[in-house]
Amino acid sequence: MEYGDLIRRAEANLKDKNILKSYVMNEGTLLREGAETNFVARFNSRYFDRFGFKFRMIDSQEASTEITLYGKKFATPFLSGALSGLTDVAEKPLVKVATGVKESGSMMWLGIVSADQQREVLATGVPTIRIVKPYQDPEMMLKELKEAEEAGAMAVGTDIDFFYGGKRGDRLFAPKAMGPKTSQETRKLVEATQLPFIFKGVLGVEDARKALEIGARGIVVSNHAGIVIDYAAHPLEVLPEIKEVIGDRMPIFVDGGFRRGSDVMKALALGADAVLAGWLLVMGLAANGSEGVSEIINIVTAELRRIMSVTGCKNLSEINQTVLVKRDYGI
Amino acid sequence: MEYGDLIRRAEANLKDKNILKSYVMNEGTLLREGAETNFVARFNSRYFDRFGFKFRMIDSQEASTEITLYGKKFATPFLSGALSGLTDVAEKPLVKVATGVKESGSMMWLGIVSADQQREVLATGVPTIRIVKPYQDPEMMLKELKEAEEAGAMAVGTDIDFFYGGKRGDRLFAPKAMGPKTSQETRKLVEATQLPFIFKGVLGVEDARKALEIGARGIVVSNHAGIVIDYAAHPLEVLPEIKEVIGDRMPIFVDGGFRRGSDVMKALALGADAVLAGWLLVMGLAANGSEGVSEIINIVTAELRRIMSVTGCKNLSEINQTVLVKRDYGI
Amino acid sequence: MEYGDLIRRAEANLKDKNILKSYVMNEGTLLREGAETNFVARFNSRYFDRFGFKFRMIDSQEASTEITLYGKKFATPFLSGALSGLTDVAEKPLVKVATGVKESGSMMWLGIVSADQQREVLATGVPTIRIVKPYQDPEMMLKELKEAEEAGAMAVGTDIDFFYGGKRGDRLFAPKAMGPKTSQETRKLVEATQLPFIFKGVLGVEDARKALEIGARGIVVSNHAGIVIDYAAHPLEVLPEIKEVIGDRMPIFVDGGFRRGSDVMKALALGADAVLAGWLLVMGLAANGSEGVSEIINIVTAELRRIMSVTGCKNLSEINQTVLVKRDYGI
Amino acid sequence: MEYGDLIRRAEANLKDKNILKSYVMNEGTLLREGAETNFVARFNSRYFDRFGFKFRMIDSQEASTEITLYGKKFATPFLSGALSGLTDVAEKPLVKVATGVKESGSMMWLGIVSADQQREVLATGVPTIRIVKPYQDPEMMLKELKEAEEAGAMAVGTDIDFFYGGKRGDRLFAPKAMGPKTSQETRKLVEATQLPFIFKGVLGVEDARKALEIGARGIVVSNHAGIVIDYAAHPLEVLPEIKEVIGDRMPIFVDGGFRRGSDVMKALALGADAVLAGWLLVMGLAANGSEGVSEIINIVTAELRRIMSVTGCKNLSEINQTVLVKRDYGI
Repeated sequence: MEYGDLIRRAEANLKDKNILKSYVMNEGTLLREGAETNFVARFNSRYFDRFGFKFRMIDSQEASTEITLYGKKFATPFLSGALSGLTDVAEKPLVKVATGVKESGSMMWLGIVSADQQREVLATGVPTIRIVKPYQDPEMMLKELKEAEEAGAMAVGTDIDFFYGGKRGDRLFAPKAMGPKTSQETRKLVEATQLPFIFKGVLGVEDARKALEIGARGIVVSNHAGIVIDYAAHPLEVLPEIKEVIGDRMPIFVDGGFRRGSDVMKALALGADAVLAGWLLVMGLAANGSEGVSEIINIVTAELRRIMSVTGCKNLSEINQTVLVKRDYGI
Repeated sequence: MEYGDLIRRAEANLKDKNILKSYVMNEGTLLREGAETNFVARFNSRYFDRFGFKFRMIDSQEASTEITLYGKKFATPFLSGALSGLTDVAEKPLVKVATGVKESGSMMWLGIVSADQQREVLATGVPTIRIVKPYQDPEMMLKELKEAEEAGAMAVGTDIDFFYGGKRGDRLFAPKAMGPKTSQETRKLVEATQLPFIFKGVLGVEDARKALEIGARGIVVSNHAGIVIDYAAHPLEVLPEIKEVIGDRMPIFVDGGFRRGSDVMKALALGADAVLAGWLLVMGLAANGSEGVSEIINIVTAELRRIMSVTGCKNLSEINQTVLVKRDYGI
Repeated sequence: MEYGDLIRRAEANLKDKNILKSYVMNEGTLLREGAETNFVARFNSRYFDRFGFKFRMIDSQEASTEITLYGKKFATPFLSGALSGLTDVAEKPLVKVATGVKESGSMMWLGIVSADQQREVLATGVPTIRIVKPYQDPEMMLKELKEAEEAGAMAVGTDIDFFYGGKRGDRLFAPKAMGPKTSQETRKLVEATQLPFIFKGVLGVEDARKALEIGARGIVVSNHAGIVIDYAAHPLEVLPEIKEVIGDRMPIFVDGGFRRGSDVMKALALGADAVLAGWLLVMGLAANGSEGVSEIINIVTAELRRIMSVTGCKNLSEINQTVLVKRDYGI
Repeated sequence: MEYGDLIRRAEANLKDKNILKSYVMNEGTLLREGAETNFVARFNSRYFDRFGFKFRMIDSQEASTEITLYGKKFATPFLSGALSGLTDVAEKPLVKVATGVKESGSMMWLGIVSADQQREVLATGVPTIRIVKPYQDPEMMLKELKEAEEAGAMAVGTDIDFFYGGKRGDRLFAPKAMGPKTSQETRKLVEATQLPFIFKGVLGVEDARKALEIGARGIVVSNHAGIVIDYAAHPLEVLPEIKEVIGDRMPIFVDGGFRRGSDVMKALALGADAVLAGWLLVMGLAANGSEGVSEIINIVTAELRRIMSVTGCKNLSEINQTVLVKRDYGI
């Protein structure tokens, strides 16, 4: 199926079921509901409009989207978001996503899952990164990190932007069980595992610098789809200064309203190594199960490859800000 | 009740009554009507969209919103506006607001009130600042300042932005009884009371500097909800340069279309010490009397606290412009 | 009547008649139709949104809007546009406008009029400036300049922006009879009269400089309501650099979508000495004849006076850019 | 017919037929459908709003729009786009366009055509540039270049932005037969013909510089109406830096959403020598056959001439950025 058909089919299917409770319709689009006025969810995808692409055609060639992360090769830098739940969308949703992700040569990220669910996902053979919630109780975190390690995750991490739980509209959730961590506390987590440890939910240069010092092997620049605080910056607003601090010392992942290959290209041009997508893979899942997931990843990857080719970037490492025009005015 | 529920209930209740005469509906929102084209009222809340927040999670902690003003501790920097009238909203409206404000550990500001109303409000025990109108006749001002002092106000002041009265649409009001004052005339007012004296309605660096020289102990940066002149600047447009002149020599209050904790955070980041809200407390009052007022203050304070925590500000004094991204383009 | 009532009554009256042929409705507003896509007419009044006002209240006083131009005192810098025709709006329209303008202590400008019409207007005693069209035939211009001088005009001029006639939508008008002029040709016109000679339709610093060299005693910065070319700049976009060249060596007039006192204040702050209004006076005329014209001028002048007072400008010469905040982003 | 009438008649006629398959309606306008979200097609014509014009009236004169390109004189710098197909609009569409183009003293560009079609077009006597597709097989290109040379084309070229074919919505077309070329491969094409060789689809300074080095005698700065990639920059966003590199060493053509003389003037002011229009000539063809084409070119040329006159540019070589005001904010 084509992109538009997949989205339309997903929305039709979701209307037949109890539509996802954490999503709202905005200007005809199904958006995840963010905190308070929901500004972030509305702003996230519009932010991409500030950037256009130049061409570099002569001497260009069909680009490769391959990427090596933590010693493994992937076919695409377009990865799954750290998914949880989704049982209202499909049966065994995470296994289906994992199957589609594997099929596309991409990487799976997991959020809140039981040990059983995690095992099932990893049994598909998909390379997986597990993000553990920042529970007040460090023992709970250590237990889950260990489970992930034992189940065969390729890397682990925690979403530091969930220190104070999340908010949808006016409703807080999980604020009690979560809690903020010091540098020292997070260092203990990093040191508790042999696996690369990733800090998810960095949205400022200070946390990026601290993560590096603490021993992180990756960060995810994210506003968590607006559920942390209303008016959280768009990740691309802070990405360039984070890239300047981090350089090539660890991979920088990014998420936040990514819909198309052009969005992915913009993030890569501004300093990201790879992009995570939650909403879009859920749409793929809702449209057509594991095959829909795979189709979406393949389509977005093909869109990215085409833009890379057209802008004269033979591979991901050749992408930088020179491919962009920046628009410092309202669109 | 949650924020959205309170606002909806307030609007429903206000429709049942004779809706507040000085308010108009704009894009589904009840706005105070400002001068002429009403640009200020439409622009006031939209201005906040230019700012987003970065995160500073690692080493953050649950923030404190406590503030000490004029030797008294308050639970929140989110204070009542200088209220007057409101008898079309509730019986004994100012006492109800005062009760709610006190309950929330906030501060009450009074505008046009009789000596009796003032006594009733102060009898609730809420710390109160009384703003006296800038009458042409200085004796009237001195009389009201004295009444406020005797009734137990913690501070007094005058709204210098009402020198020429106000305007709603094409209708001037109170232009006769009011009149402009010189530095010397205002100095006499400042010297006539033992209480801290506050200049309300500063919207430019010259008046801020003069207020300081004259002996002011605080200023309110304000465009008076647009009733002074059409196209009055948004307070946040002039706040940074005022802060630069005033420094920490006296508290800087600000008002102007504040709706949520995120708005308050932006003002504090740009140099304000505390924020005044009129419209929002009237909504609380209309929704649920003194309890509604208290609920609104508590909700906005909790929103602020959450954003402070997420941005790594342990207390109000740690908030500054580094938490913001600024958007120099149309939103 | 109040401003809004006058406009509404004017629009109702114009609908009863054959509505003015050169006007179109745009977003509920009656606009003069400009060239091609009509961008100028839509943009003209929106441009004012880029500017807000600061307050300077302390030591301010009720402002004076008086202005002396060419040795005569006027009560207001808000003057009539150079009017022509209007017989579809009222009988003896120019005499009615003149009567209203005189009543308000303002200045009358005339465009295309017969010698008889000019005499009738000047018979009202209103100080009048006559703008003669830039005919291909210089003799026609000299004849009309002489008529104006004899009829008692206080100054004369020509609209250099009509060298190539005008355009409404896709229709050119008067392109044949008009023609471009050299510096030398215009110098002859200037020298042919004892009266101050004004260049109307300057929209760039080159023409302003040439006008000064040629002996002009005034210029009108204007985009002629969009009828010269589509996408003509807004006069306020070029006014500051023109003011820098001209300084105080001759009065700078400006027109272009002026509706309210706040618009006038912005032009004065950016370097204009006085403002011309066509559309608005036509609305006054349509609403209430000469009295409506006078009412409109008085209202706009009162709005201006109020903003001057609030911004601490005691008279017109004290107005400058420091009263403005400039918004470099979409509104 | 006037401009608006021609467009309306074209749209009516196209609705009677099977409307052009590659066009979509957007906000009441018929737009060519671009890649993916179609951002380019929506953005292309809006980009012109960022620029306004100043006047330079004194000493101006009726301008000449004449231009000499490759040794031939043309009446206008407003040229046809490189057209293909259009058999759903009219019978013998390219001959009709050619006839209209010739009538107006403009230049014809051809895209995908058979040898027969090319002969028919050239038989009209219209000076023609032939753009050959960048086939994977260089022999196919050489064959078509030779055919063009033999048929009497004045210049040839290839659209380098079609190396990877095109995309409408989610549908790729012609991706197989096309292929990217190196500098060396394109140099061979340039050297294979005696005619001036033009690189069409330059959208960045690198390709412009390479084209010059390879021996190009002209470039077309273009985003190909959005069919190459979504979010391709507007040609005017990159034109100034390309002009800086190329200078006067070869003509710079530009296309991208041009509708009116004002759009053309902006491109010329930013460094273009001439403008290509596809959509607009198709509208002329649909409205009134070859006569409609001629009418459209004449109207746009007249609009351009008028703006040149008003801005004091006597001929095309006098046009530069000083005629523009640039708006760095949302419109």
